[in-house]
Amino acid sequence: MGDRLEEKVVSFIDLGTNSVRLLVVRINRNYSYKILRRQKDTIRLGDGEFEKNILSEAAMDRAVSACRQYVDISRNFGAEEVIAVATSATREAKNRDELIRRMSECAGAELNVISGDEEARLIYLGISSGIEIGEKKYFFFDIGGGSTEVIVGDQSGYNYLRSLKLGAIRTTGRFGLDTDNGILSDRDFDNLCRSLRDKVHHVARETRQYNISEAYGSSGTIISVITAARKISDACISENGNGASDMDYDGSCSYSAGIEEIYLLLDHLRTIPNDEKKKIPGISPERADIILAGTAILYTVMKECGIEKITASERSLRDGMLVDYLSKIPGFPHAENMPVRKRSVRQLGRSCRIDERHAMKVSGHALSLFDSGIMAGIHNYSPKEREYLEYASYLHDIGQFLSFSGHQNHSYYVITRSQLLGFDQKEIIIIGLIAGYHRKRMPKRSDEGFSSLNLKDQKKVTFLSGLLRIAEFLERSHDERERICEFVIPDDKCPMIRISPEKDCNSEIQLIKNDMKNLKKAFGREIFIAADRLSNKQ
Amino acid sequence: MGDRLEEKVVSFIDLGTNSVRLLVVRINRNYSYKILRRQKDTIRLGDGEFEKNILSEAAMDRAVSACRQYVDISRNFGAEEVIAVATSATREAKNRDELIRRMSECAGAELNVISGDEEARLIYLGISSGIEIGEKKYFFFDIGGGSTEVIVGDQSGYNYLRSLKLGAIRTTGRFGLDTDNGILSDRDFDNLCRSLRDKVHHVARETRQYNISEAYGSSGTIISVITAARKISDACISENGNGASDMDYDGSCSYSAGIEEIYLLLDHLRTIPNDEKKKIPGISPERADIILAGTAILYTVMKECGIEKITASERSLRDGMLVDYLSKIPGFPHAENMPVRKRSVRQLGRSCRIDERHAMKVSGHALSLFDSGIMAGIHNYSPKEREYLEYASYLHDIGQFLSFSGHQNHSYYVITRSQLLGFDQKEIIIIGLIAGYHRKRMPKRSDEGFSSLNLKDQKKVTFLSGLLRIAEFLERSHDERERICEFVIPDDKCPMIRISPEKDCNSEIQLIKNDMKNLKKAFGREIFIAADRLSNKQ
Repeated sequence: MGDRLEEKVVSFIDLGTNSVRLLVVRINRNYSYKILRRQKDTIRLGDGEFEKNILSEAAMDRAVSACRQYVDISRNFGAEEVIAVATSATREAKNRDELIRRMSECAGAELNVISGDEEARLIYLGISSGIEIGEKKYFFFDIGGGSTEVIVGDQSGYNYLRSLKLGAIRTTGRFGLDTDNGILSDRDFDNLCRSLRDKVHHVARETRQYNISEAYGSSGTIISVITAARKISDACISENGNGASDMDYDGSCSYSAGIEEIYLLLDHLRTIPNDEKKKIPGISPERADIILAGTAILYTVMKECGIEKITASERSLRDGMLVDYLSKIPGFPHAENMPVRKRSVRQLGRSCRIDERHAMKVSGHALSLFDSGIMAGIHNYSPKEREYLEYASYLHDIGQFLSFSGHQNHSYYVITRSQLLGFDQKEIIIIGLIAGYHRKRMPKRSDEGFSSLNLKDQKKVTFLSGLLRIAEFLERSHDERERICEFVIPDDKCPMIRISPEKDCNSEIQLIKNDMKNLKKAFGREIFIAADRLSNKQ
Repeated sequence: MGDRLEEKVVSFIDLGTNSVRLLVVRINRNYSYKILRRQKDTIRLGDGEFEKNILSEAAMDRAVSACRQYVDISRNFGAEEVIAVATSATREAKNRDELIRRMSECAGAELNVISGDEEARLIYLGISSGIEIGEKKYFFFDIGGGSTEVIVGDQSGYNYLRSLKLGAIRTTGRFGLDTDNGILSDRDFDNLCRSLRDKVHHVARETRQYNISEAYGSSGTIISVITAARKISDACISENGNGASDMDYDGSCSYSAGIEEIYLLLDHLRTIPNDEKKKIPGISPERADIILAGTAILYTVMKECGIEKITASERSLRDGMLVDYLSKIPGFPHAENMPVRKRSVRQLGRSCRIDERHAMKVSGHALSLFDSGIMAGIHNYSPKEREYLEYASYLHDIGQFLSFSGHQNHSYYVITRSQLLGFDQKEIIIIGLIAGYHRKRMPKRSDEGFSSLNLKDQKKVTFLSGLLRIAEFLERSHDERERICEFVIPDDKCPMIRISPEKDCNSEIQLIKNDMKNLKKAFGREIFIAADRLSNKQ
């Protein structure tokens, strides 16, 4: 854990067409970072712009005022760098130089106007760095006020980037969707749909080859649409008595909607006035007038590109800006050399300043026991469980940060509350619990988290925490000596654990023996230490 | 928050007569510290020593081996300094130079043999720095294997220090208390008591002037005795059907026993064999043979000095060593210039790297609202509640350390799990809850912690968190501007909050107005912002 980096605070501002967003981050000396502030304000920079491509004075005032506040906040947090990007509203404005000048003079922000492709790239970085999808390809969407980004990619990179001049504010203005209180006649609705299809057509053609049916979507519009679509659809289902409204939820905080649900919402929205739209859960009052356009865009993109299901992501362009920034710091773990989950676990450990060398050694022993345990017929868990064990071992001491006594419980809390990326909620609970039982008492049915698991997962947690306990006992001294620890099957076929060099590990072996009652529970059987058996035989 | 200190790790070792203890601490650049490791091992250095004042080879082997391990652990944590002290067993041994030489050569520890008075001073520092007692005087005791320390003092210092050559191991050996399996005849018991009284007599005489009837006791012996005494006494009470066995518990983790309870235990212990003693909750197997002596010493000291009640402290000499070390670092907050509670709150905040300037400003506003609120007839809470509000305000953002989103909940967790010094458990919960409700939703009956409070304390938390919410809204920008915020009573006697300079605080005032529904709940009445009323009048 080198201390080569200088600590600094960096701030990222995303000046969009509808909202402006802030992210203030402290970059630590040990190659980890800490989010100091997130903020978002709706300023509608693009309001009334797109007919003549002129930013209004009032809109510029709002933008400058919000950015000045963000720059102040950034400075107050000690930010040395403030990186601000502006997207379609600014990109297309004829008077954008005025905005840039005012931003510099009055807000102290040097606005970088980025291209649509760069915007798409950063959005891809933001979303993809928060999920673990491996080599499977997905669509990534973002529907802003002025543009819609469409990306195709997997974990390691993107294959296709496109920014469309389609956005919730732009489309609302162009089709006058907020006249007539937001109610659309059949004919106007057909016109809207046809026009959107035309815009999306070539993207659909160019991406057909990837044959993808699932997407991740960021942006306030998409999150609102998915939330509202789910509510509408759930309401319909429960009216029809079909129950089980949460069946598509994947157990994590993220949520998804199918294209039929989006269509139901769209068909509903076009028939009700804006005041009614505000009442739909998920649609905020300040978004009610542009939600019809946003829903129509999302539906059209999904329909034309053959997307059946979209999952919301809370991450967005500013997260991509951070990932991009970090990837340029030599030595910073980033997407290209480490998978999302592992990177996120590593980042959490470092930001809490765990003893990384100790963590790696404990993790090594735990995995060695896991692997040799399969060979010895002790268990038949899969690589997935191996991964949980690896992360739990790495993070087992993280709660020490709060207090040494009871730190195993704090480890559970820190792990389950730290928004690790790329996991679903159940996986995080399992990892937290394994770490939480690395010392002291064993699981109890009523424990927080543990009680939420089914019996199979409870057994899994108990078993894996048993392996971690042994690994931790071996490294109690936090020293540099090399030890080996694995399950072996001697002649009489009764599995046992061999620890070597045995003569140097007397006190560690004693610790394990003292815990034998718990370990027996964890493994559901008697466990021998090689030293026992050998001395019994002699 | 200056970064003038160089970060370093320091390790403290206390080589006692019965146990050896380790404390590894990282001292941070921002004048805070973090406990990295606590460990204790029973090595019985004084076993068989006190007849001829010769440390046995076997005992020295155990001590050197344990200290070598501790020094290794310390180095593994990166300790630059290892400070080791030795007490009575070493102090009195004729062959102590051999132990010192072996410690230096084989364990790498330079052993400082400290006097009984210095031992007493460090014990006083250790215990008193963990409680808040103000100017009230208490006894402080520690019963080791070879010596017993008696101190009289209050928060700011000690008036009396004495180390007696009385200890659990020494007395056990001298009176042969472990022969006959630890059962004592009436005559032997009388002899023991008489001898102990003689030893304690002059301390009793010298401390009589202070007229104190309560004590704090550290050391494994005292904690065991108090725990066991409570169990025995509770068992008697419930046998007699008197119920309410926990009536003396003060709601915190600390626990107390009265002199009658200690006597009951003593009278029981002398009649049962050591194997039976092990079965009493609180008495560990390796202490069973010396617990009779320890109990007899504690009882005699209490009886002779007129102590009616003793409260256990988990802190001890090594904590005193740390306090002593920190007090010599220029600029480090320590007992002489800051009360225990405040210092502990400050230390926690810094170790989690809160934005201290922001914390102080929010705290200032909250207290200003509290004080002016009394004048305006809004509440009549006492200085105690003011103190809770002050600490909760200072720590309100501490959970950001875990993640920004939901950080108010994390603040509650961190505050309640961080072993703040000088508070009882209920006070810590109240402070945690006030911080936990500083933003987002208001208290719910079923909330962890909140549900454990009675209605009066729930109201208190809700009210004080309302003040904190306003204070936090005012400082949302984390900027340097000076604002003033207080309750005022205008002509029509209806209290309201005046915020100034009003024209610079429009966005802050708006935030407060947006939260009015919650604030109304917190204060149980409508609250006006001065700007409202003035404009209404105009």
